[in-house]
Parts: sequence; structure tokens; C-alpha cells
Amino acid sequence: MGTMTDTPQGGIPRARQEPKQARSRVTRRHLLEAAVSCLAEHGWAGSTVGVVAERAGVSRGAAQHHFPTREVLFTAAVEYVSEERSTALRELFHSAPAPRPAVVEALVDLYTGALFRAALQLWVAASNEEQLRPRVTELEARVGRETHRIAVELLGADESVPGVRETVQGLLDMARGLGLANVLTDDTARRARVVAQWSRIIEDALT
Amino acid sequence: MGTMTDTPQGGIPRARQEPKQARSRVTRRHLLEAAVSCLAEHGWAGSTVGVVAERAGVSRGAAQHHFPTREVLFTAAVEYVSEERSTALRELFHSAPAPRPAVVEALVDLYTGALFRAALQLWVAASNEEQLRPRVTELEARVGRETHRIAVELLGADESVPGVRETVQGLLDMARGLGLANVLTDDTARRARVVAQWSRIIEDALT
Repeated sequence: MGTMTDTPQGGIPRARQEPKQARSRVTRRHLLEAAVSCLAEHGWAGSTVGVVAERAGVSRGAAQHHFPTREVLFTAAVEYVSEERSTALRELFHSAPAPRPAVVEALVDLYTGALFRAALQLWVAASNEEQLRPRVTELEARVGRETHRIAVELLGADESVPGVRETVQGLLDMARGLGLANVLTDDTARRARVVAQWSRIIEDALT
Repeated sequence: MGTMTDTPQGGIPRARQEPKQARSRVTRRHLLEAAVSCLAEHGWAGSTVGVVAERAGVSRGAAQHHFPTREVLFTAAVEYVSEERSTALRELFHSAPAPRPAVVEALVDLYTGALFRAALQLWVAASNEEQLRPRVTELEARVGRETHRIAVELLGADESVPGVRETVQGLLDMARGLGLANVLTDDTARRARVVAQWSRIIEDALT
């Protein structure tokens, strides 16, 4: 009972409250990361709150406390991991202006791996499921704008020059297409050659 | 009995045999076209041989006579419609060398519409289903090679020049990415601007 003396009336001791909030954040993060892996590996049909909870080592009830529906969980997961990737990309090129070929390569890398696979599954499911569609459409627009902003910044592209905006957009469309080509087969070798050639073309187009 | 006199021993009268074969071809085509629309609209989970048979106005038994399994039906459908599109594209530019911007636009058009949506659904389903995967991977490689061949031919690209092969590949990757951007929202206006700019870039890169 001694610890209760430094507690606000009726409240939880500060020393116990903070670890609880921290634990809650960790649980949330584990659920989001498990949701992305699950979606990437098993697709929308194989991805439920229960499966993700088990994968994250959390009870189904705790998972539902954080994410009341399947739609909320999976869109939050794709958004969370997208933000993580954006932050990592900005930090990678934080210190100095990067050479454009390295930036093109890093941008294309955003579209290979588990995050893109998960986003693709969500995207395709949303095209068939009405209750998922508005949420995913809105998420996609937000992530797309942010990726475009990062690309412009890291490429040092001047969007006041006519055509530059569309050059960058086309590059990101190409990156998305390369991501799609990597879903069924390992397209690494072909992709490296395409990226090398298009780095030169983008360099010319932006100079 | 009179018509039987001009029939090979034990055979079917020629006049009756041909319409039957023709009817069988028509039924097959209806099933393939219905399968692509079904896949584009309802996704893999909502696409069965029964649903397609009903849509094509054919009995389930007749559908199964043509396509014994769901996997065979849907991969055959995507292949059939891809071939139809390739033939149409070749015929469109048959008479004269086409201006490159028109070719770029026509190539990008291959990736919007029902065929791309259907192929995308099949692709994503194949990434989660082992019995579908080898068939779709092989189909994708075949259709990809054919599209690349058409692109090189129509763009008048000289692949003996270093980098030209990858320029064309990157263009088709961009077209695929633009197709993906059109799945959830109508991306027509943005796409037209990107295609106009990238037509200029391709023209410079190939000249």
C-alpha cells in the first residue's frame, strides 16, 4: 500500500502507468508488423485478426482492443509500415545530396519485399470488396503523395519545370510495375539492368 | 436416311459435323470471355467454373468438358484474351510505321481495362496458391515475351544498341504500374500526362 501515497486521487501510480502505455505501444507495433507479414504471405482471404494475433503472440481480445475490425487492422498495418519505410529512406539520404542512381535504386526497392506484397494484396482485395475499398483508396492516395514528395526531394527535381512532375510520377509507376514483376518470380537480375538504364535516362531528363 | 449416303462409314455426316465443331469453338470462346470478366469483377475467390458457365449461358457439364479444372479455365482465359489483344495491336499498326507516341499510348492501354484486372487477380491469387503458381508463372513469362516483341517491333527499336532492350522493358514496367494505379480509381487524366511526358523521354532515348 506504500506506493499508493504518491498517486493522484483514484489514479494509477505513475511508475505503473508508463510501462503499461509502453507495453501497449509495443503490442500495437507487433500486431501491425505481424499483419503485414501475414497479408504478404497468405493474402486477404487468409488474413484475419485471429491469425495475426496468434502470430504476434497476443490474445485475440487484446488484438481487437487495438483494432476493432479486420479492415482497420490491415489498412493501419500497411500505413504504419509505409511510414517506417519513408522515414528510413529519408534518413538514408539525410546527410548529403545523394547521387541520382542511388536514389532511383532506393525508390525501386520500396516496391519489392513484404510491404509491397501486402499492399498489393490489400489493393486487389479492395477492388472486389466494397467495405474495404474507400479506406484503401484513401490510404493509397496518402502514401502515394508522400512517396512522390520524397522522390522529388531526394532526386533534387525542380517541379516548376514543365514535365518534371510527370517524369517523377512515371518513374514511380515504373517502380510499381517492377514490384509487380517480382511477385511470382525473383526478378532481381533483370530489374538491376532496367534500373541502371533508366537511371541514365532519368538523369538526362532531369538535367 | 438419305443424307447418310455421303458419309464415311460409321462417321457423322460432314454437314452436321462442321456446325458442331463451330458451335464448340463458339462455346469455348464465350466461356473464356466470361471467365476474364468474372475474374476482373469478382476476383479469384469469387470465380468458379460454375459462375462462369452460368455467365456464358452454358451448362456446368459443358464448361467442364472444355476446361476440366478452375486453374485450366482461368489461365486459358487470360492467355486467350492476351492473344486477342496482341493481334489487335499488331493489326492497328499494320499498314504504316506508327508515330512513337501513338505506340506508347497503345502499349499502356494494354494494361488498363478488364484483361489487366483479370490478370492481376490471377497473379495475386497465384502468389498464395501453390497449385496455381507454376501455371501462372509460365503464362506470365510467355505473355511478357510476346508483349516485349510487339513493343520492340512497333517502336522500331534496335535492340542491338546497348541499353535499348532495357529502355523498352522499363517502358512496359511503367505501363504495368500505370495499370495498377487504375485498379481502384479512374487514373485516366494523370495517366495521359505521364504518358505524354514519357513518350518524349522514350523518343529521345531511342533516337
